[in-house]
Amino acid sequence: MFEYHIAATTKRARAGIFSTPHGDLLTPVFAPVGTQATVKTLTPEQLKDLGASLVLSNTYHLYLRPGDELVRDLGGLHQFMQWPRPMLTDSGGFQVFSLAGTRKIDEDGVTFKSHIDGSLHRFTPEKSIAIQENLGADIIMAFDECSDPNDHAYTKIAMERTHRWAERSLRAHQRSDQALFGIVQGGVNPQLRAQSAEFIASLPFPGIAIGGLSVGETKDEMHRALEVVTPLLPENKPRYLMGVGTPEDLINGVARGVDIFDCVLPTRLARHHAAFSPEGRLNLMNAAFARDARPIDETCDCYTCCTFTRGYIRHLIVAKELLAGTLISIHNLRTMIRLMEEMRAAILDASFKQKLPGWLERWQGNAQRQNDKSAGRVHSVVEGCKISE
Amino acid sequence: MFEYHIAATTKRARAGIFSTPHGDLLTPVFAPVGTQATVKTLTPEQLKDLGASLVLSNTYHLYLRPGDELVRDLGGLHQFMQWPRPMLTDSGGFQVFSLAGTRKIDEDGVTFKSHIDGSLHRFTPEKSIAIQENLGADIIMAFDECSDPNDHAYTKIAMERTHRWAERSLRAHQRSDQALFGIVQGGVNPQLRAQSAEFIASLPFPGIAIGGLSVGETKDEMHRALEVVTPLLPENKPRYLMGVGTPEDLINGVARGVDIFDCVLPTRLARHHAAFSPEGRLNLMNAAFARDARPIDETCDCYTCCTFTRGYIRHLIVAKELLAGTLISIHNLRTMIRLMEEMRAAILDASFKQKLPGWLERWQGNAQRQNDKSAGRVHSVVEGCKISE
Repeated sequence: MFEYHIAATTKRARAGIFSTPHGDLLTPVFAPVGTQATVKTLTPEQLKDLGASLVLSNTYHLYLRPGDELVRDLGGLHQFMQWPRPMLTDSGGFQVFSLAGTRKIDEDGVTFKSHIDGSLHRFTPEKSIAIQENLGADIIMAFDECSDPNDHAYTKIAMERTHRWAERSLRAHQRSDQALFGIVQGGVNPQLRAQSAEFIASLPFPGIAIGGLSVGETKDEMHRALEVVTPLLPENKPRYLMGVGTPEDLINGVARGVDIFDCVLPTRLARHHAAFSPEGRLNLMNAAFARDARPIDETCDCYTCCTFTRGYIRHLIVAKELLAGTLISIHNLRTMIRLMEEMRAAILDASFKQKLPGWLERWQGNAQRQNDKSAGRVHSVVEGCKISE
Repeated sequence: MFEYHIAATTKRARAGIFSTPHGDLLTPVFAPVGTQATVKTLTPEQLKDLGASLVLSNTYHLYLRPGDELVRDLGGLHQFMQWPRPMLTDSGGFQVFSLAGTRKIDEDGVTFKSHIDGSLHRFTPEKSIAIQENLGADIIMAFDECSDPNDHAYTKIAMERTHRWAERSLRAHQRSDQALFGIVQGGVNPQLRAQSAEFIASLPFPGIAIGGLSVGETKDEMHRALEVVTPLLPENKPRYLMGVGTPEDLINGVARGVDIFDCVLPTRLARHHAAFSPEGRLNLMNAAFARDARPIDETCDCYTCCTFTRGYIRHLIVAKELLAGTLISIHNLRTMIRLMEEMRAAILDASFKQKLPGWLERWQGNAQRQNDKSAGRVHSVVEGCKISE
């Protein structure tokens, strides 16, 4: 259980297989986010059809509602939401620290107010692990402190506390059918990142996460942090870059040796009517699409693109029909998963290096094209992974 | 095309086959409502899986948004919403007359204000048919006037106008691949109902609808109207009871010789968290269901009941997750369609008369049980078919 087998590599990029109680994860892999034990607007059947394997759910949200003991009593998270493939829960740390002004950190843990009803709660490493054991995901996370990357003095304090909490998380964890991952912190400081990577790598975690990125730093800072961290991590353990990101981030992450990603971006964009496409991100509410008989992306193999026109989806958006969110979510998630499948195949057949510039051109160029004055631009869609998901 | 073949009868109840350009309709049949070219929250794939055949869409809504010419230019309604099986559009009359205070009726037609932006529009029989020809459903409806069943003096005026508009609708209709149905009106007055049935039956419509019911009359009045009308209609044409109704109404309608039904009730109830079940209508938000590991209905064969617990669906509702509406819609629609399938099979194997009391007991008793003080009651969910769907 929880063995990680590397099938092929191209420089830092790896194609592997991570064995879990709910089947083998083929890496690199992108995990859709099902915050409240549902990937918003999609049935498990639709998720399977679009090729999802790993699904992430949030400890903070499920602890508050419906409660981790209720989920346990109804058979655990897989049974509760009827997802038969691997699952991952975060530790709740990120969400709790996002509750600025309403949480109080001490050495033992964090006291915070529920965003639902303002009630007081307390997470410690031991409590986070106990909740995650009740939820029952295949991969669970150590309780960590994610700090503001621009607060350099505090970054060291938070990192050192994260290390002590990593050890407490390990001691607290009992279920042998769950892989507990440690989390590397250290903000955008290369020395702290290196120190954290070495410390977390020295502990007996079956997998290692890289936290505290995609939280306000620049893309260059994110890439430099990865370049410092991944060479210091053991080859035979999967690496998980938490809460990242855009298609471009996935390409850059895989090229730097990351195996697992998650982000709310594809489903959140979908709820803002924005779809990934070869022309850039399309705002499908734009009047230019009213009579457009093409699919969102003619190269896409998803149910939405194989079935519906942009004109129809635009109508659903304008008419405030919820099906729009479902159809765009299917497309956006499939786009991310297909990109991962393409990268994995290219690592396996040794074409990754050759194809890398094309992917970057497509998806970075894609981001550029958003700045065009042409039809269908998306403005100000929040890209990070905030508590509201 | 548009032949109606009766395969078996039990007293008034009929099991038949109505041929359309998009396949054979097996009657009696219940049509889910896709007001704005989508059955709310469901993909066509999910609709097919739950056994839907005929789907209704609304002329008034599609005329205003996205516009019938746009639907025509994108290939017609089937192509637009990707529903490959038979479709029906209403005439827009019912919706327009529901716009109390903002519409003006004259002999030629109706002027009304859009509920979207207040803009002025005009429907005549000729205009309604032209719109429905652009939309391209298999079954389309004559433009009629539906009056308040309690305004007896006006009922006669509206009925006579409906008759003149029926003749104009027939003259206006050109597409041979669409079946234009006439509509019987006459409110709750048996003499007017008989007069209207005889008049509409005398015109060359391939099918006949019964309008103006389920709009405020009593159940007894509805049943009496059906008992007056159906014996006066030709045997070899399908009969469509518009906008009806509850499971109990479907049973009573089939027993009185109705072949086709539609109603927003199953999907509207779903959005109010209410599910059909053998215990009566359940309000799945009720705390009593939080740890309930049973499906909504243990006898149901739908995706929702074969997959999810009441506890999970209750969590989705409380967490305001849209998937709740999808899952309950699937169940409620499947319940209606399964009831129709059971009645059809029973007419074919001559067990209808024997099974009728059981169905009535289950579904009328079901309505009774709603008045219990036990868990999961639904209050004040609007049952009619109003403009908001």
